[in-house]
Order: sequence, then C-alpha cells, then structure tokens
Amino acid sequence: MSSSTYPRRRSTHVIPNHFLLLLGIPRLLTLASQPSQYAHRVHLALDEVKAEYVTHNIDLQAKPAWFLEKINPEGTIPALSYGPKCAPDDPSPEAAAIPESLVILEFLADLFPNGGILPPNDPVARARARLLVAHFESVFTVAFKSAFYEGKSPQLVLDALLEFQARLPKDGFALGAWGMVEMSAAPFLVRTWMLLEHDFGHYPVGEGTKAWEALSKEDKFTRVRKYVEDMKAYPTFRGSWDEVRKLSVRS
Amino acid sequence: MSSSTYPRRRSTHVIPNHFLLLLGIPRLLTLASQPSQYAHRVHLALDEVKAEYVTHNIDLQAKPAWFLEKINPEGTIPALSYGPKCAPDDPSPEAAAIPESLVILEFLADLFPNGGILPPNDPVARARARLLVAHFESVFTVAFKSAFYEGKSPQLVLDALLEFQARLPKDGFALGAWGMVEMSAAPFLVRTWMLLEHDFGHYPVGEGTKAWEALSKEDKFTRVRKYVEDMKAYPTFRGSWDEVRKLSVRS
Repeated sequence: MSSSTYPRRRSTHVIPNHFLLLLGIPRLLTLASQPSQYAHRVHLALDEVKAEYVTHNIDLQAKPAWFLEKINPEGTIPALSYGPKCAPDDPSPEAAAIPESLVILEFLADLFPNGGILPPNDPVARARARLLVAHFESVFTVAFKSAFYEGKSPQLVLDALLEFQARLPKDGFALGAWGMVEMSAAPFLVRTWMLLEHDFGHYPVGEGTKAWEALSKEDKFTRVRKYVEDMKAYPTFRGSWDEVRKLSVRS
Repeated sequence: MSSSTYPRRRSTHVIPNHFLLLLGIPRLLTLASQPSQYAHRVHLALDEVKAEYVTHNIDLQAKPAWFLEKINPEGTIPALSYGPKCAPDDPSPEAAAIPESLVILEFLADLFPNGGILPPNDPVARARARLLVAHFESVFTVAFKSAFYEGKSPQLVLDALLEFQARLPKDGFALGAWGMVEMSAAPFLVRTWMLLEHDFGHYPVGEGTKAWEALSKEDKFTRVRKYVEDMKAYPTFRGSWDEVRKLSVRS
C-alpha cells in the first residue's frame, strides 16, 4: 500500500459507530488558535493526515465567552473541537473539545491511525517516539521559555539542543519517517533559529546572535542543523511556515 | 464480549510479525524498579492486562553497570524491557528498553489494546483519559513532590486534589471503567492519605496530620475521598498495595 494513496488515510475511527447516521457527511475539525508553536504542532498533524478542518483565531487578550464555556474552560489554545459541522462559536452538543497540543496529536493519531503521526502497529516504535517527545517537552521547551520569554541565557537552549541531538538517529527523522517527534519539535526548532538570528528574546542584546552563530557554524551542532534543514524541506512543514511573514508580524 | 474472558487480552501486537519464530514462546517483561509510586503505576498496568512479567529491583544508590549500559542510560526507574526471555542483567539484543512510567502505560495499552488501559476504539475517550493524566502529572505530582520531599505545605496537595476532583465525573472512575487515569493517579493518591495520616514528609511536624483530618472530614473532599476508596477496593489495586508493610518499611 503506497503511503501517498487515499487508503493510507482511511480510518474506522473518524466516524465512530454511534454516529453512523452521519456517514458521508463531512465532520468538522475546528482549531481555536493563534499562530503559536503549540498550534503549529496541530496544524502539522492535521495537514499530514489530510484532515478537513477550519481554523478560528482566538484573541488571547480578550477570550470570547463561548470559547471558555463551550470549548475550553482552561482558556488555553490550541483546542480542537471534533463534531458535526457547525459554526466555530456554536459547537454541536455532540462535539468533543480537546485542548493540549500533545494530547491532540495522540487524538489525531487515533483518529487517523494510518495518517503518519505514529506507526499504527509497532508498539516499540510508538514508545520510542513518545519518549523523544516527552524528553523534548521536559527539556527543550523549558529551555526555550527560559531564554525567549524569561530572559535567561540562550546557552540553555544550545545545551538542550545537544541533549536532544544525542537522542536522534545518525540521519533522517527520529523514526526514519516524519512523524509525531517532528510535529512536536519542528515548531520550536525553526523558531529557535529564527529568533536567535534576529536576536529576538528577553535575554541581553547580542546574546541571541552569538548563539545563532555557534549553532550555524560549530561542528557539534552539525547533526541537529541537518535535522532542522530536513524538517524545513518536508512538504507539510513547508506549507505551514512562512518565515518572512512571521518576521513581519513580529517587527 | 465479557471483559473478564480471555479474548479481552488477545492482541496481535504482543508478538510482532518479525518475531513470528517465537510465537507461543512466552516473552518476558522485566521491570527494573524499587517500590516507588512510578513503578507502582506500571505494576497496576501489567497486572490489569495480565501480562507475564518478572521484576528485578535496582539499587538506586548503586546502579549496576548493566542497567545503565543495556537498559536505561538515564538511570531512571521504572524501566521496562520487552524482548525474548533472558536474565534481567543480560537482555537480548532484540529487547527494547522503555523508561518513563506514562510512556510505559501507553506502550502496554498498544501491546494489549483490549487490556483495559485505554478504550481501543474511542479516540475521544482516549483523549479525555490522556487529558486527565496530563493534568494530574503537571499539577498533582508537582504538589506531591513539593510537600513530601521539599518541605512545602501540604495545603498545596489539598489544593491540587480539589483541582483534580473538579475534573472527575460525579461518581465511578474517570471514564467509568478503571483505566489509565486510575493507574496513573492511584499510586500517588493512596500514598497521600497514608503519608499525611502518619505525618511523614518534609513539611513541619503536625501539618500532615492536620491536612489528613481535613481530607478525612471536610465535605469539599467527599468526591475524591470516595474515588480513593473505590480505587483501594479495585482488584488489581488491592493485590498491589499492602499499607501495613509499606509503613513498616518506612518506620
């Protein structure tokens, strides 16, 4: 079975049995998000499984009441609403709302078991992917926040990158094929390069550029540099990332 | 299909196709652990799916070289080794070693899809379970560490309990049937009651007993109190927990 043909995406889970009346009626995936690295993860997964979905942006400074009442009382984004087609601000009572990017990725892997998020029939490979994602989440994203939002040294990010790099195979993506690890890591890694290069972040002026130079030139970062290049060249990623536009939004 | 009959546990994943030569030969699950709350999670999952497994204790103060070399370079426990039967300290080169209790639970859910860890064909219910586990992990276990290991007030634990309680259904287990949420939470919740009652922990003397009295008597904890009673009465849990022995080890 080719990985690019339609059957790859077919799933008995997309419309559960108790909704058989809706068979053939497209179901709607609503993504409540701003363009953040966490929402980016979900976009990558939705695009990879070729899900039909619409996006609806939420103003984090003035969250609408319907979002807090009907989608996510915690108020965090991204949140995915899964249910019969309807307006974003008036979800069906049957709709399920799911926050937390990594839980959403698992949900989409369950919904589209052959969609390329996790290998469907290989528990050991799935565990390897989850271990890498868990490591990235507990080490890299923490360093990312410390440097870019809390003013700590970008050196923390470089150290975390080396730790992550040590867990990668010699070449290619984490499990060979693009999957959950890349969907989780790419949004943070490409922003890391971009933010450091342009010295964006709460760390002292100049420290970002210095870290970017180390990242770009030093041999010890060769493997992760190639990994990020491979990510940027991957089709669903290329379609999701417009660095020039991101930069203009920020400046 | 009854939930207590053999077919419930049958899985095409337990022996992957590329090990077909081993069909019918029991495979071995080695659990490297001390009796910690994290290892307890894995015991609960292994017992629930009725896996054949042996345990091997690791001295955390003097980790054997083979453990670090062949099982888990990070040195954390629990770690699960999955592969052909062999001595704990001489795992087969084919064996996969998996650390991190929550990743192990997902692994066992994949390996035994009908074993009762996660409902196999309900992506929304699986997401609800994972959301609760993620909440418990990021809120309750953090409060648990703060109070019992770092000397912060047990009030943090009570607050975290109320937050968790607010996410539980009106009665029964998180998804109705016992599953991943209970396997993840029970080892921490029963220890919370036990440690507070006996005033064990790094907080000031007497604060544990005081918190235990609130937990035991105040109406606002009624729901979570019932939840913990239900957990303690659940068969695989009862078989895994000997409070009298735990206390004698501690005193």
